[in-house]
Amino acid sequence: MDHKDYMARALELAAQAAEHGDVPVGCVIVKDGEIIGEGRNRREEHGDATAHAELEAIRDACARLGSWRLHGCTLYVTLEPCPMCAGGIINSRIETVRYGARDEKAGCCSSVLNLFEERFNHHPRIYRGPLEPQCQKILQDFFLDLREDGEEQA
Amino acid sequence: MDHKDYMARALELAAQAAEHGDVPVGCVIVKDGEIIGEGRNRREEHGDATAHAELEAIRDACARLGSWRLHGCTLYVTLEPCPMCAGGIINSRIETVRYGARDEKAGCCSSVLNLFEERFNHHPRIYRGPLEPQCQKILQDFFLDLREDGEEQA
Repeated sequence: MDHKDYMARALELAAQAAEHGDVPVGCVIVKDGEIIGEGRNRREEHGDATAHAELEAIRDACARLGSWRLHGCTLYVTLEPCPMCAGGIINSRIETVRYGARDEKAGCCSSVLNLFEERFNHHPRIYRGPLEPQCQKILQDFFLDLREDGEEQA
Repeated sequence: MDHKDYMARALELAAQAAEHGDVPVGCVIVKDGEIIGEGRNRREEHGDATAHAELEAIRDACARLGSWRLHGCTLYVTLEPCPMCAGGIINSRIETVRYGARDEKAGCCSSVLNLFEERFNHHPRIYRGPLEPQCQKILQDFFLDLREDGEEQA
Protein backbone atom coordinates (compact mmCIF):
# COMPACT_ATOMS: atom_id res chain seq x y z
CA MET A 1 0.00 0.00 0.00
CA ASP A 2 1.18 3.53 -0.72
CA HIS A 3 0.13 7.05 0.27
CA LYS A 4 -2.79 7.01 -2.18
CA ASP A 5 -4.17 3.78 -0.76
CA TYR A 6 -4.14 5.15 2.79
CA MET A 7 -5.86 8.38 1.74
CA ALA A 8 -8.35 6.35 -0.32
CA ARG A 9 -9.29 4.48 2.87
CA ALA A 10 -9.65 7.81 4.70
CA LEU A 11 -11.99 8.92 1.88
CA GLU A 12 -14.10 5.77 2.38
CA LEU A 13 -14.44 6.66 6.05
CA ALA A 14 -15.37 10.24 5.08
CA ALA A 15 -18.14 8.88 2.84
CA GLN A 16 -19.48 6.85 5.79
CA ALA A 17 -19.59 10.04 7.87
CA ALA A 18 -21.70 11.75 5.19
CA GLU A 19 -24.12 8.80 5.17
CA HIS A 20 -24.73 9.52 8.87
CA GLY A 21 -25.28 13.25 8.25
CA ASP A 22 -21.81 14.31 9.37
CA VAL A 23 -19.42 16.54 7.45
CA PRO A 24 -17.36 13.96 5.50
CA VAL A 25 -13.94 13.73 7.09
CA GLY A 26 -12.02 10.47 7.47
CA CYS A 27 -8.66 9.57 8.95
CA VAL A 28 -6.29 6.61 9.18
CA ILE A 29 -3.08 6.18 11.18
CA VAL A 30 -0.31 4.03 9.72
CA LYS A 31 2.69 2.43 11.40
CA ASP A 32 5.22 0.25 9.57
CA GLY A 33 2.93 0.10 6.55
CA GLU A 34 -0.09 -1.12 8.50
CA ILE A 35 -3.27 0.80 9.36
CA ILE A 36 -3.45 0.79 13.17
CA GLY A 37 -6.17 3.39 13.69
CA GLU A 38 -9.25 4.61 11.85
CA GLY A 39 -11.79 7.31 12.51
CA ARG A 40 -14.50 9.34 10.88
CA ASN A 41 -16.30 12.47 11.92
CA ARG A 42 -19.20 11.49 14.23
CA ARG A 43 -20.07 14.88 15.72
CA GLU A 44 -23.73 14.74 14.68
CA GLU A 45 -24.05 10.95 14.95
CA HIS A 46 -22.81 10.92 18.55
CA GLY A 47 -23.75 14.50 19.50
CA ASP A 48 -20.16 14.92 20.67
CA ALA A 49 -18.06 18.00 19.90
CA THR A 50 -14.84 15.99 20.33
CA ALA A 51 -15.77 13.19 17.90
CA HIS A 52 -13.65 14.42 14.99
CA ALA A 53 -12.06 11.87 12.64
CA GLU A 54 -8.49 12.47 13.87
CA LEU A 55 -9.27 12.10 17.59
CA GLU A 56 -11.29 8.96 16.89
CA ALA A 57 -8.34 7.53 14.92
CA ILE A 58 -5.83 8.52 17.62
CA ARG A 59 -7.97 6.86 20.30
CA ASP A 60 -8.27 3.75 18.15
CA ALA A 61 -4.51 3.60 17.53
CA CYS A 62 -3.69 4.15 21.23
CA ALA A 63 -6.03 1.30 22.17
CA ARG A 64 -4.49 -1.04 19.60
CA LEU A 65 -0.88 -0.17 20.56
CA GLY A 66 -1.67 -0.03 24.29
CA SER A 67 0.13 3.29 24.59
CA TRP A 68 -0.66 6.99 24.30
CA ARG A 69 2.61 7.50 22.41
CA LEU A 70 2.20 7.04 18.66
CA HIS A 71 5.89 7.36 17.79
CA GLY A 72 6.76 6.61 14.16
CA CYS A 73 3.15 6.93 12.98
CA THR A 74 1.77 8.81 9.98
CA LEU A 75 -1.74 10.26 10.08
CA TYR A 76 -3.70 10.64 6.84
CA VAL A 77 -6.76 12.89 7.00
CA THR A 78 -9.01 14.18 4.23
CA LEU A 79 -9.30 17.70 5.73
CA GLU A 80 -6.70 19.92 7.37
CA PRO A 81 -6.88 19.40 11.17
CA CYS A 82 -8.68 21.93 13.41
CA PRO A 83 -6.94 23.25 16.58
CA MET A 84 -8.33 20.40 18.72
CA CYS A 85 -7.10 17.71 16.33
CA ALA A 86 -3.75 19.37 15.64
CA GLY A 87 -3.31 19.50 19.43
CA GLY A 88 -4.21 15.82 19.72
CA ILE A 89 -1.62 15.03 17.04
CA ILE A 90 1.02 16.90 19.07
CA ASN A 91 -0.06 15.19 22.31
CA SER A 92 0.15 11.71 20.76
CA ARG A 93 3.63 12.35 19.27
CA ILE A 94 2.53 11.43 15.74
CA GLU A 95 5.52 11.90 13.47
CA THR A 96 3.97 12.88 10.14
CA VAL A 97 0.65 14.33 8.96
CA ARG A 98 -0.66 14.15 5.39
CA TYR A 99 -3.89 16.04 4.73
CA GLY A 100 -6.07 16.50 1.67
CA ALA A 101 -8.27 19.60 1.51
CA ARG A 102 -7.29 22.89 3.13
CA ASP A 103 -9.62 24.34 5.79
CA GLU A 104 -9.48 28.12 5.48
CA LYS A 105 -11.78 28.61 8.49
CA ALA A 106 -10.19 26.35 11.11
CA GLY A 107 -7.11 24.64 9.64
CA CYS A 108 -4.14 24.53 11.99
CA CYS A 109 -1.46 23.13 9.64
CA SER A 110 -1.08 26.45 7.78
CA SER A 111 -4.46 28.02 6.95
CA VAL A 112 -5.33 29.84 10.20
CA LEU A 113 -2.26 28.84 12.21
CA ASN A 114 0.49 26.26 12.05
CA LEU A 115 0.42 24.71 15.52
CA PHE A 116 3.24 22.34 14.57
CA GLU A 117 5.66 25.25 14.33
CA GLU A 118 4.79 26.75 17.71
CA ARG A 119 6.92 26.19 20.79
CA PHE A 120 5.25 22.98 21.99
CA ASN A 121 7.30 19.89 22.82
CA HIS A 122 6.64 18.03 19.56
CA HIS A 123 6.71 19.14 15.91
CA PRO A 124 5.10 16.73 13.42
CA ARG A 125 6.07 17.01 9.75
CA ILE A 126 3.28 18.13 7.40
CA TYR A 127 2.64 17.18 3.77
CA ARG A 128 -0.22 18.01 1.41
CA GLY A 129 -2.06 15.25 -0.43
CA PRO A 130 -2.33 12.78 -2.03
CA LEU A 131 -5.87 12.79 -3.55
CA GLU A 132 -6.43 16.43 -2.67
CA PRO A 133 -9.04 16.97 -5.45
CA GLN A 134 -11.09 14.00 -4.22
CA CYS A 135 -10.84 15.26 -0.63
CA GLN A 136 -12.15 18.68 -1.72
CA LYS A 137 -14.90 17.20 -3.90
CA ILE A 138 -16.45 15.04 -1.18
CA LEU A 139 -16.84 18.15 0.99
CA GLN A 140 -18.17 20.31 -1.84
CA ASP A 141 -20.73 17.65 -2.78
CA PHE A 142 -21.87 17.33 0.85
CA PHE A 143 -22.45 21.06 1.31
CA LEU A 144 -24.10 21.35 -2.12
CA ASP A 145 -26.56 18.58 -1.16
CA LEU A 146 -27.25 20.33 2.16
CA ARG A 147 -28.08 23.59 0.36
CA GLU A 148 -30.31 21.83 -2.18
CA ASP A 149 -32.15 20.00 0.60
CA GLY A 150 -32.62 23.35 2.34
CA GLU A 151 -34.09 24.88 -0.82
CA GLU A 152 -36.48 21.96 -1.29
CA GLN A 153 -37.73 22.37 2.27
CA ALA A 154 -38.09 26.16 1.88
CA MET B 1 -22.45 26.91 44.82
CA ASP B 2 -20.00 29.55 43.66
CA HIS B 3 -16.82 29.64 41.59
CA LYS B 4 -14.74 28.27 44.49
CA ASP B 5 -17.04 25.29 44.95
CA TYR B 6 -16.82 24.34 41.29
CA MET B 7 -13.03 24.63 41.24
CA ALA B 8 -12.88 22.66 44.51
CA ARG B 9 -14.74 19.84 42.75
CA ALA B 10 -12.26 20.05 39.84
CA LEU B 11 -9.46 19.75 42.42
CA GLU B 12 -11.08 16.60 43.85
CA LEU B 13 -11.07 15.11 40.35
CA ALA B 14 -7.42 16.15 39.92
CA ALA B 15 -6.55 14.29 43.14
CA GLN B 16 -8.25 11.17 41.76
CA ALA B 17 -6.09 11.43 38.62
CA ALA B 18 -2.94 11.50 40.77
CA GLU B 19 -4.11 8.38 42.63
CA HIS B 20 -4.11 6.59 39.25
CA GLY B 21 -0.63 7.85 38.35
CA ASP B 22 -1.83 10.64 36.08
CA VAL B 23 -0.75 14.28 36.21
CA PRO B 24 -3.44 15.78 38.48
CA VAL B 25 -5.79 17.83 36.33
CA GLY B 26 -9.54 17.98 36.91
CA CYS B 27 -12.39 19.73 35.17
CA VAL B 28 -16.10 20.44 35.61
CA ILE B 29 -18.61 22.07 33.26
CA VAL B 30 -21.43 24.12 34.74
CA LYS B 31 -24.72 25.26 33.21
CA ASP B 32 -27.36 27.25 35.08
CA GLY B 33 -25.53 26.59 38.35
CA GLU B 34 -25.46 22.80 37.92
CA ILE B 35 -22.46 20.59 37.16
CA ILE B 36 -23.33 18.83 33.88
CA GLY B 37 -19.91 17.40 32.99
CA GLU B 38 -16.87 16.11 34.86
CA GLY B 39 -13.50 14.82 33.78
CA ARG B 40 -10.04 14.08 35.03
CA ASN B 41 -6.79 13.35 33.25
CA ARG B 42 -6.68 9.64 32.37
CA ARG B 43 -3.84 9.60 29.87
CA GLU B 44 -1.80 6.99 31.74
CA GLU B 45 -4.80 5.14 33.18
CA HIS B 46 -6.37 4.63 29.74
CA GLY B 47 -3.18 4.84 27.63
CA ASP B 48 -5.00 7.45 25.55
CA ALA B 49 -3.36 10.69 24.39
CA THR B 50 -6.77 12.36 24.05
CA ALA B 51 -7.97 11.55 27.60
CA HIS B 52 -7.36 14.99 29.09
CA ALA B 53 -9.67 16.30 31.81
CA GLU B 54 -11.31 18.93 29.60
CA LEU B 55 -12.15 16.58 26.70
CA GLU B 56 -13.51 14.00 29.15
CA ALA B 57 -15.71 16.69 30.73
CA ILE B 58 -16.87 18.00 27.33
CA ARG B 59 -17.79 14.48 26.22
CA ASP B 60 -19.66 13.92 29.50
CA ALA B 61 -21.56 17.22 29.15
CA CYS B 62 -22.44 16.53 25.49
CA ALA B 63 -23.82 13.12 26.47
CA ARG B 64 -25.89 14.56 29.32
CA LEU B 65 -27.29 17.44 27.21
CA GLY B 66 -27.70 15.27 24.10
CA SER B 67 -25.97 17.91 21.99
CA TRP B 68 -22.46 18.82 20.89
CA ARG B 69 -23.27 22.49 21.49
CA LEU B 70 -22.49 23.57 25.06
CA HIS B 71 -23.91 27.08 24.76
CA GLY B 72 -24.08 29.03 28.02
CA CYS B 73 -21.66 26.69 29.82
CA THR B 74 -18.66 27.56 31.99
CA LEU B 75 -15.68 25.20 32.14
CA TYR B 76 -13.55 25.11 35.32
CA VAL B 77 -10.16 23.41 34.98
CA THR B 78 -7.26 23.24 37.42
CA LEU B 79 -4.59 23.73 34.70
CA GLU B 80 -4.52 26.03 31.69
CA PRO B 81 -5.80 24.08 28.64
CA CYS B 82 -3.37 22.64 26.05
CA PRO B 83 -3.97 23.23 22.31
CA MET B 84 -6.13 20.09 21.99
CA CYS B 85 -8.37 21.06 24.90
CA ALA B 86 -8.55 24.75 23.96
CA GLY B 87 -9.62 23.55 20.50
CA GLY B 88 -12.24 21.26 22.04
CA ILE B 89 -13.56 24.22 24.05
CA ILE B 90 -13.89 26.25 20.84
CA ASN B 91 -15.55 23.34 19.00
CA SER B 92 -18.12 22.80 21.76
CA ARG B 93 -19.03 26.53 21.94
CA ILE B 94 -18.33 26.76 25.67
CA GLU B 95 -18.94 30.36 26.71
CA THR B 96 -16.49 30.87 29.58
CA VAL B 97 -13.29 29.21 30.82
CA ARG B 98 -11.89 29.58 34.34
CA TYR B 99 -8.51 27.95 34.92
CA GLY B 100 -6.23 27.62 37.93
CA ALA B 101 -2.51 27.10 37.32
CA ARG B 102 -0.73 28.49 34.28
CA ASP B 103 1.00 26.03 31.92
CA GLU B 104 4.09 27.74 30.55
CA LYS B 105 4.94 24.77 28.30
CA ALA B 106 1.63 24.08 26.57
CA GLY B 107 -1.01 26.56 27.81
CA CYS B 108 -3.22 27.97 25.07
CA CYS B 109 -5.16 30.59 27.04
CA SER B 110 -2.19 33.00 27.17
CA SER B 111 1.06 31.18 28.07
CA VAL B 112 2.20 29.80 24.69
CA LEU B 113 -0.71 31.09 22.59
CA ASN B 114 -4.21 32.41 23.14
CA LEU B 115 -6.30 30.29 20.79
CA PHE B 116 -9.47 32.08 21.92
CA GLU B 117 -8.28 35.30 20.28
CA GLU B 118 -7.42 33.73 16.92
CA ARG B 119 -9.78 33.95 13.93
CA PHE B 120 -11.82 30.83 14.68
CA ASN B 121 -15.62 30.97 14.73
CA HIS B 122 -16.00 31.07 18.54
CA HIS B 123 -14.23 33.10 21.23
CA PRO B 124 -14.73 31.91 24.81
CA ARG B 125 -14.09 34.36 27.65
CA ILE B 126 -11.15 33.49 29.92
CA TYR B 127 -10.71 34.13 33.64
CA ARG B 128 -7.94 33.11 36.07
CA GLY B 129 -8.81 31.31 39.28
CA PRO B 130 -10.29 30.81 41.79
CA LEU B 131 -8.11 28.55 44.01
CA GLU B 132 -5.05 29.14 41.85
CA PRO B 133 -2.56 28.39 44.69
CA GLN B 134 -4.23 25.04 45.38
CA CYS B 135 -4.22 24.21 41.66
CA GLN B 136 -0.48 24.93 41.49
CA LYS B 137 0.27 23.02 44.70
CA ILE B 138 -1.38 19.76 43.63
CA LEU B 139 0.83 19.74 40.52
CA GLN B 140 4.00 20.67 42.40
CA ASP B 141 3.39 17.94 44.99
CA PHE B 142 2.80 15.36 42.25
CA PHE B 143 6.04 16.13 40.43
CA LEU B 144 7.97 16.33 43.71
CA ASP B 145 6.73 12.84 44.64
CA LEU B 146 7.72 11.55 41.18
CA ARG B 147 11.26 12.88 41.60
CA GLU B 148 11.57 11.46 45.11
CA ASP B 149 10.35 8.06 43.92
CA GLY B 150 12.91 8.23 41.12
CA GLU B 151 15.70 8.96 43.61
CA GLU B 152 14.65 6.08 45.85
CA GLN B 153 14.77 3.70 42.90
CA ALA B 154 18.16 5.01 41.73
